[in-house]
Amino acid sequence: MSDIAGRLAPQMGALGLHTSHGGSGKLITGLPGVPPGRVLIIGAGVVGMSATRTAVGLGARVTLIDRQADTLVHAEAQFGARVETRFSSPDTIADSLEYADIVIGAAQIPGRHAPRLISRTALARMPQGAVLVDVAIDQGGIAETSRPTTHSDPFFVADGIVHYCVTNMPGAVARTATKALTHATLPYVQALAAQGLAALESDAGLKAGLHVQDGRIIHAGLAQDLQSR
Amino acid sequence: MSDIAGRLAPQMGALGLHTSHGGSGKLITGLPGVPPGRVLIIGAGVVGMSATRTAVGLGARVTLIDRQADTLVHAEAQFGARVETRFSSPDTIADSLEYADIVIGAAQIPGRHAPRLISRTALARMPQGAVLVDVAIDQGGIAETSRPTTHSDPFFVADGIVHYCVTNMPGAVARTATKALTHATLPYVQALAAQGLAALESDAGLKAGLHVQDGRIIHAGLAQDLQSR
Amino acid sequence: MSDIAGRLAPQMGALGLHTSHGGSGKLITGLPGVPPGRVLIIGAGVVGMSATRTAVGLGARVTLIDRQADTLVHAEAQFGARVETRFSSPDTIADSLEYADIVIGAAQIPGRHAPRLISRTALARMPQGAVLVDVAIDQGGIAETSRPTTHSDPFFVADGIVHYCVTNMPGAVARTATKALTHATLPYVQALAAQGLAALESDAGLKAGLHVQDGRIIHAGLAQDLQSR
Amino acid sequence: MSDIAGRLAPQMGALGLHTSHGGSGKLITGLPGVPPGRVLIIGAGVVGMSATRTAVGLGARVTLIDRQADTLVHAEAQFGARVETRFSSPDTIADSLEYADIVIGAAQIPGRHAPRLISRTALARMPQGAVLVDVAIDQGGIAETSRPTTHSDPFFVADGIVHYCVTNMPGAVARTATKALTHATLPYVQALAAQGLAALESDAGLKAGLHVQDGRIIHAGLAQDLQSR
Amino acid sequence: MSDIAGRLAPQMGALGLHTSHGGSGKLITGLPGVPPGRVLIIGAGVVGMSATRTAVGLGARVTLIDRQADTLVHAEAQFGARVETRFSSPDTIADSLEYADIVIGAAQIPGRHAPRLISRTALARMPQGAVLVDVAIDQGGIAETSRPTTHSDPFFVADGIVHYCVTNMPGAVARTATKALTHATLPYVQALAAQGLAALESDAGLKAGLHVQDGRIIHAGLAQDLQSR
Amino acid sequence: MSDIAGRLAPQMGALGLHTSHGGSGKLITGLPGVPPGRVLIIGAGVVGMSATRTAVGLGARVTLIDRQADTLVHAEAQFGARVETRFSSPDTIADSLEYADIVIGAAQIPGRHAPRLISRTALARMPQGAVLVDVAIDQGGIAETSRPTTHSDPFFVADGIVHYCVTNMPGAVARTATKALTHATLPYVQALAAQGLAALESDAGLKAGLHVQDGRIIHAGLAQDLQSR
Repeated sequence: MSDIAGRLAPQMGALGLHTSHGGSGKLITGLPGVPPGRVLIIGAGVVGMSATRTAVGLGARVTLIDRQADTLVHAEAQFGARVETRFSSPDTIADSLEYADIVIGAAQIPGRHAPRLISRTALARMPQGAVLVDVAIDQGGIAETSRPTTHSDPFFVADGIVHYCVTNMPGAVARTATKALTHATLPYVQALAAQGLAALESDAGLKAGLHVQDGRIIHAGLAQDLQSR
Repeated sequence: MSDIAGRLAPQMGALGLHTSHGGSGKLITGLPGVPPGRVLIIGAGVVGMSATRTAVGLGARVTLIDRQADTLVHAEAQFGARVETRFSSPDTIADSLEYADIVIGAAQIPGRHAPRLISRTALARMPQGAVLVDVAIDQGGIAETSRPTTHSDPFFVADGIVHYCVTNMPGAVARTATKALTHATLPYVQALAAQGLAALESDAGLKAGLHVQDGRIIHAGLAQDLQSR
Repeated sequence: MSDIAGRLAPQMGALGLHTSHGGSGKLITGLPGVPPGRVLIIGAGVVGMSATRTAVGLGARVTLIDRQADTLVHAEAQFGARVETRFSSPDTIADSLEYADIVIGAAQIPGRHAPRLISRTALARMPQGAVLVDVAIDQGGIAETSRPTTHSDPFFVADGIVHYCVTNMPGAVARTATKALTHATLPYVQALAAQGLAALESDAGLKAGLHVQDGRIIHAGLAQDLQSR
Repeated sequence: MSDIAGRLAPQMGALGLHTSHGGSGKLITGLPGVPPGRVLIIGAGVVGMSATRTAVGLGARVTLIDRQADTLVHAEAQFGARVETRFSSPDTIADSLEYADIVIGAAQIPGRHAPRLISRTALARMPQGAVLVDVAIDQGGIAETSRPTTHSDPFFVADGIVHYCVTNMPGAVARTATKALTHATLPYVQALAAQGLAALESDAGLKAGLHVQDGRIIHAGLAQDLQSR
Repeated sequence: MSDIAGRLAPQMGALGLHTSHGGSGKLITGLPGVPPGRVLIIGAGVVGMSATRTAVGLGARVTLIDRQADTLVHAEAQFGARVETRFSSPDTIADSLEYADIVIGAAQIPGRHAPRLISRTALARMPQGAVLVDVAIDQGGIAETSRPTTHSDPFFVADGIVHYCVTNMPGAVARTATKALTHATLPYVQALAAQGLAALESDAGLKAGLHVQDGRIIHAGLAQDLQSR
Repeated sequence: MSDIAGRLAPQMGALGLHTSHGGSGKLITGLPGVPPGRVLIIGAGVVGMSATRTAVGLGARVTLIDRQADTLVHAEAQFGARVETRFSSPDTIADSLEYADIVIGAAQIPGRHAPRLISRTALARMPQGAVLVDVAIDQGGIAETSRPTTHSDPFFVADGIVHYCVTNMPGAVARTATKALTHATLPYVQALAAQGLAALESDAGLKAGLHVQDGRIIHAGLAQDLQSR
């Protein structure tokens, strides 16, 4: 599902730039003589890598930020000079926001609240009419200004920035999502059907997905996040 | 402006596929294990070539149809094996419609009504939930079912097919369009400012743009189209 | 050797399409205005990945089918949008056969009989004059109609489909095969020369290659296949 | 038709390298650790450019030779660093032959005999088991050793070099050739059907195709060649 | 020769960035996590297009500026999204200088003095340790601070900016330059040898190269430039 | 740091080819009609892979040699047909030297003396005016003729071959090197600061970096090399 959200994110960002959605009226592809859109992708996990692929394909100028050196090495091997990679730091993010037409929040920690990387002050550095696509909204979002939206009313403007914060992004492409999900989960379903809960003992991956047991939260990260709120 | 419309068309087609717009719920990029969207582009002029570029960038499977052999040779030199080219004929179009997730109507004759290439019967061959982006709507559209829409309400569904028929597509990206237009028209504006109407005599390109003079339509194609309706 | 067979397979498929070999007379590269050949590759292991590379290089439209999700993710990372990937299922294979000009059977289970994925009924869905390159022929072939052929008489036509079922495909390019084999096996030869059979104890990879010991078949898969026939 | 011959030529050259056809047993694509085949293409017209595309797609190391500077500039713009271009001269050709696994004779002068660029002495510089694909065989061939062959028996070995000299190469892919020819000639056929011989007066291209009139050869080049033989 | 100078320019710019030549110590290719060098190329003629190719190949972020819309359309068709194109204007140049690690002056008017596009004030906007490669130095240079240098001492630092202003850049690669020049001029030499000065009458291109005749400057542009200085 | 040295190596090799540095006067990119430079890279580790990327980007014809089959498989997956890979052997190296304009010595064994792969006799097979960039000079160099040079006087000519043997190559691009180093070493510095020497016990990577302890050399390879000299 992360893969789908990543591929959709730059498309939604490009749409948010349109005048009718409150954006700056820039064409993401650019034109001969007119520069393409700048896309800043924060996080080079599955979401970020998929978002990079689509953004590059659309002809945008892409900057990909991550904390892990080996993740950036992998990204460069995959995309070469078509994407610029940067080590993540508060300074790097703040500087990059200044030139971004589209920011894609792709930093996620599995099972935990997303890191709050973009404060209201940081947001103010973005150009008016720029777009924030907060893919991490299902875990609370990476921006102070983010609040959940829906497929029927996906955008809102806050502080001059167009926000796209649709929860369950893959729902937009239900057919593709269903096909992918069916194939990805089929082995687990077959194991549960054949063995019942015993399947969790023989498959560490399956067991790691257990969040609540006998009414108690047993997933450490989830428990910690819920307590601290 | 044709260049802009062409670059926008596949993006609008991909959007129309989303469930919330009435489409089939397919993700244009596809996923590992799930095929990408099929895009059929009718016409390999400026609109069609620009649409091809964006559609290829999004990872779609693109078929480009045109009547001119040398136009297709040029398209193949530009895009190589990433796009499939076909000679246009009623049979070719009808066959291609059957597999198309997105059809982009890019056949235009300057100053004349667009050719009616997709009858209601032909449209019925498209899969339910497919999208028709009729870029030629400013000249009347290439489909029998096309009728003008606006940026605020761009889609409608007819016969199970999602239609995008926004007139003045470049208006969506007003900033980019204005920049491009300024540079493209500046030489003509300068000529008119310096010489007045005499400028038309010294610039055949400028003169070709004159449609109405002293209250009479003097552009042959336009006159013919308006009479025959 | 699998790598060589994979690289040869689309070339042999393209040759089988020629009229003089009984094929449909299609040029695999296509031409401007005339679509390229459709190549269906079943199995994304070493053979399938190498076959994909050559088929893509020839300008064909390639569909790659496999059962493993991560294998398809890897294939997409390698080839991007130049190849369409699909999850394997009986339905997927049957549907894909309908449009295939060339089918490459690349599904192999090391040391076991190849899976019978194409029955005579399934074969009947392929277009007349299409080609089946059954790389798995050394393990019995993936099609009901496959029977071994030789480099001097490589093709036969059965049920209207051109079959290429040469055993030991790498023999066609003996010089390249010998160079590659020399380098690949040299470490094992050196180990056997230095340590004799004791080398098998210190190298699990070498030991896994032992099929018959003291006159008994000790490779589990091979034993099972030979019993069940 | 030149386009088809060009796309077929490297495929036929790769086939000629196979041991069963008398070639050196090299795999044109190469393997990791084993170099790919060297392809020398003489002439960068339609045949040569199409041959270059296919040879590059197969992963060969391609050298393209031509006398025209602007033709080579165009080739470099199209293929970039994937092909090496060289100005044609007797020395250049002789040097290049020494390293060539496949030589493609693509030098043609419309309506005239092909230039004899490869004498028996020059041929002796090629490595044993190399292949010569003489696409110019319909105009007599570019090599002293070339003599016409057929689709049913396409190869012969002379002086240790495998020769492919099939006249009417496009006949191998009759279906694709017919589709392309139909579209290319349709306008001329329509003109002749409507106007008869008068069509030649209104279309210089059509008139240039007239070789024999009232029993006399009126095409200058053809007349000259036939006299001098 | 322009082609050679263009291909050398980004290499010389990358060298000027090295600490030992007074530059900022940036690696033009960048690294995973560290952005590549920004290259600004002013002028999209032969020099600019060749410089773009090399700069893109080195992995730099390239911005190409020109006044002609169709030149930029051509550049985009050639390089796609790997280069950003912008319409030239004093504002565009000034803004772009601010982010440039390397500026390549490639604006030339044949036979005339190069336009003075970078004043000392404009130069002050470039980051300290950036490099200016003034390919137009043979026509006087595009920067106020440019003065001719030599292959043995190619760089100087002025106002904190490293300047490379070698006249006759192709002299660095004498062997390649000689080969290219020989082939390019051979037809003219042959014409002059055969016909003497009469050759100028039958070849407009040759005649256009005549700058001084009977002791008088007859090339309009050259005459005008020399008078106005 | 190996990554930086690798990316710089082909740039320094291209510079060494210039006439002013004693080289053959070849332009590494080549020109239409004039072949590009041949680059031979010995060793496909981090240095060799980075060098390959830059050399390919410059348009050179690259041959990459290594002893490990899987390393070459990885290189081919990364670069495809743009680079030719060969299994390393004394014969392969000797043959390849004959055609090399630039040789990049990238064979290194961590913590040990570099292998002496190019004797004075082998060097004599290289063309006069060719360049040797010995990246392994910090470990003693791979050529008999190599001796350390500096950034201020980087080249010397020995036996007709231009040598670039700068120790500490990354020093040329101090800013980029510092940024990369900071990020790469930060986790280790933080661990040492927090835990002192105890950090070595909890991090095997950190412990492997310990070369001298209590006055004794404890790194096996280093000890062996210093003894044997």
